[in-house]
Amino acid sequence: MASDGFRPLDEKSLVEYVKATPSLAAKLGNQFDKLDVREVGDGNLNFVYIIVGESGSLVVKQALPYIRSIGESWPMSKDRAYYEAITLQEHCRLCPQHVPEVYHFDKKMSLIGMRFVEPPHIILRKGLIAGIEYPLLAEHISEYLSRTLFYTSLLYMNTTDHKNGVANYCGNVELRRLTEQVVFSDPYRVAEFNRWTRPYLDDEAQAVREDNILKLEVAELKSKFCERAQALIHGDLHTGSIMVTADSMQVIDPEFSFYGPMGFDVGAFIGNLILAYYSQDGHAAAGADRRSYKKWILMAIADTWNLFFKKFAALWDKHKDGPGEAYLPEIYNNPEARLLVKQKYMEELFHDSLGFAAAKMIRRIVGVAHVEDFEAIGEAAPRAECERRALGFAKTLLKTRQTFHDISQVVSAIELHDEAV
Amino acid sequence: MASDGFRPLDEKSLVEYVKATPSLAAKLGNQFDKLDVREVGDGNLNFVYIIVGESGSLVVKQALPYIRSIGESWPMSKDRAYYEAITLQEHCRLCPQHVPEVYHFDKKMSLIGMRFVEPPHIILRKGLIAGIEYPLLAEHISEYLSRTLFYTSLLYMNTTDHKNGVANYCGNVELRRLTEQVVFSDPYRVAEFNRWTRPYLDDEAQAVREDNILKLEVAELKSKFCERAQALIHGDLHTGSIMVTADSMQVIDPEFSFYGPMGFDVGAFIGNLILAYYSQDGHAAAGADRRSYKKWILMAIADTWNLFFKKFAALWDKHKDGPGEAYLPEIYNNPEARLLVKQKYMEELFHDSLGFAAAKMIRRIVGVAHVEDFEAIGEAAPRAECERRALGFAKTLLKTRQTFHDISQVVSAIELHDEAV
Repeated sequence: MASDGFRPLDEKSLVEYVKATPSLAAKLGNQFDKLDVREVGDGNLNFVYIIVGESGSLVVKQALPYIRSIGESWPMSKDRAYYEAITLQEHCRLCPQHVPEVYHFDKKMSLIGMRFVEPPHIILRKGLIAGIEYPLLAEHISEYLSRTLFYTSLLYMNTTDHKNGVANYCGNVELRRLTEQVVFSDPYRVAEFNRWTRPYLDDEAQAVREDNILKLEVAELKSKFCERAQALIHGDLHTGSIMVTADSMQVIDPEFSFYGPMGFDVGAFIGNLILAYYSQDGHAAAGADRRSYKKWILMAIADTWNLFFKKFAALWDKHKDGPGEAYLPEIYNNPEARLLVKQKYMEELFHDSLGFAAAKMIRRIVGVAHVEDFEAIGEAAPRAECERRALGFAKTLLKTRQTFHDISQVVSAIELHDEAV
Repeated sequence: MASDGFRPLDEKSLVEYVKATPSLAAKLGNQFDKLDVREVGDGNLNFVYIIVGESGSLVVKQALPYIRSIGESWPMSKDRAYYEAITLQEHCRLCPQHVPEVYHFDKKMSLIGMRFVEPPHIILRKGLIAGIEYPLLAEHISEYLSRTLFYTSLLYMNTTDHKNGVANYCGNVELRRLTEQVVFSDPYRVAEFNRWTRPYLDDEAQAVREDNILKLEVAELKSKFCERAQALIHGDLHTGSIMVTADSMQVIDPEFSFYGPMGFDVGAFIGNLILAYYSQDGHAAAGADRRSYKKWILMAIADTWNLFFKKFAALWDKHKDGPGEAYLPEIYNNPEARLLVKQKYMEELFHDSLGFAAAKMIRRIVGVAHVEDFEAIGEAAPRAECERRALGFAKTLLKTRQTFHDISQVVSAIELHDEAV
């Protein structure tokens, strides 16, 4: 073991670790004879082990001091496990039905023991690729978004607690820098790890790098990402950070969390649904054209925002005399003032969300990390065609987001762009 | 001495403290026989001692755990001395010609030993009341503002250093809460310590409390104040925090400092100049109508913004290939992109500054802490008349700030409002 108490585990040493840790051992009913241990980390960053025994199961996640998908050449603070653990705990407290429970956190080992989100849960992105409809998805994600964002904002928190939170999460700066780089910078410059479907999108990638208006808009979003401490956001809420069944949704992997702009979470989710939408033609097969599934995705986008709006506003109403220090009751609790501030707040959040959605889309097409929605389209030409539509819409959305006042207008624009290209 | 190492000093124990502190004793040439010690804290918060000996001088400032002007009934963390000390040091490093040197800081004692800003320096506010023109004022304050704000923003700093700064200053939350309360909240509600020139301004004070559009606008500014970590701002840059002679300007008292919106500093200064402008008729005497002095104040307002704009933009140009991570050179260093981002950045900063200027004006007329500019007008009726004009203009400015694109338009509006009322 290194002097700082950290050692990377493998499948064998992991079991010894679990045996020696009562809170984890108990989850397996203290039965270690017939354990099934699998390493399943398919994300970019960490090692993730599923341990299933006869009397129980759990997941152990360990952060190593580099980015897994790149290797030791891209070092990354393993303290990210600490931020993931405390955000899981806080978000689970606020929304227990949609965030898995943390059983154990070992700061020195950068190790989290947590609930195994069991089958038939699958990663939402895989479900979207498979064309599965999730009737409760918008209901669930809007519940998660509204509760985690509202309760960690100054609409509910007092200034002192909020500032303590902001200060604590400032330490998660390496992951913020990573996001700054891969979302807001690399797609707009020549960068080592950028890639796109060549040669089909060569011109599109170059156009992104040379579009000064686009770069102006993305700079505004980057400034909000870097400077605005609005709420404790997940920080990486794409469809690969969500596990679903027909009637359950669990949000995982908040290691990028910090006090940032709410729209970054709302936008990540919506942007990834739009990516899923534009990828569908690539997954269509003879006799299965995905037309009705595309309609369902559009409905999920609209429902997500509308339900989020409704639930967020309801929480605000419920706590209008609560501890939040942004809008003090004596000043704002008259019907006209409440209506005015709510309209303004929600409109800004809407435009932020659309902007971040667009930025997240662009980076998945011409930046370092792509999405399986497109990658799973085996042939380059049809994949590039799907990506071209998505990229084109994202650019328009980023530049014109302020002109939208309603999610139905956005949904119409997605469809129009799809038909026009 | 209390167990935490803190004890409040008086004039006698102060001298013992100085004698026992080499860095302070040295400033007096280690001569303690004929010391002139005076307590001069005329601000709201702290005790300030000037010590002048035959071989030198210094100022000792000590924060007590409450607000001096209110008393022990309004407790206030004495840690504010720490934030004042580190901001004085950082701002002095960035702009040594306009920030006094710190000789000594004692965290346990909440005590700063610093340069005595010697006569003929006087508090700028007193100079403005006396009708003294300071031809270099705009030049000096724009130098201070541009250097302290630029160099502590992401235009110059990298994300890691910036976040470290943000985190450190989150601890200064009590003073932020105080500002939130007295600037952004109390004037808009019935509050114990609010006052105004009664009965003349009773209707105006009530109108402020009932103006939902005004409250909507001030909420947006409060949100920026609470959430946006743009640069290390002074946090209380009114004309009482500035000492001047004909050819020198020194900025003092940054205990409210934190990483906040730049416009809060620029606006504080400009707003207090506008207050000074509207107070002038109250200081006019037979044969001295202050007309030309009012013109000079307007010129100082215009010059302050224009010179700030010029210097800030010049620093940005100078460091366009520097360490700042907001606008990376490979992305933004083409003429069109640079022009676009600069225009957008400066326009937002301009509107923020106007908004904060207006909010600072309003709170000085119907909130707890008033300004000597008006208070020095002995008779209530003419004082109220001056305040009424200032308040009326501030309300207009707060509501319509986005319609101004140039400081000359603001100056014209100030004059027009003065003539129209």
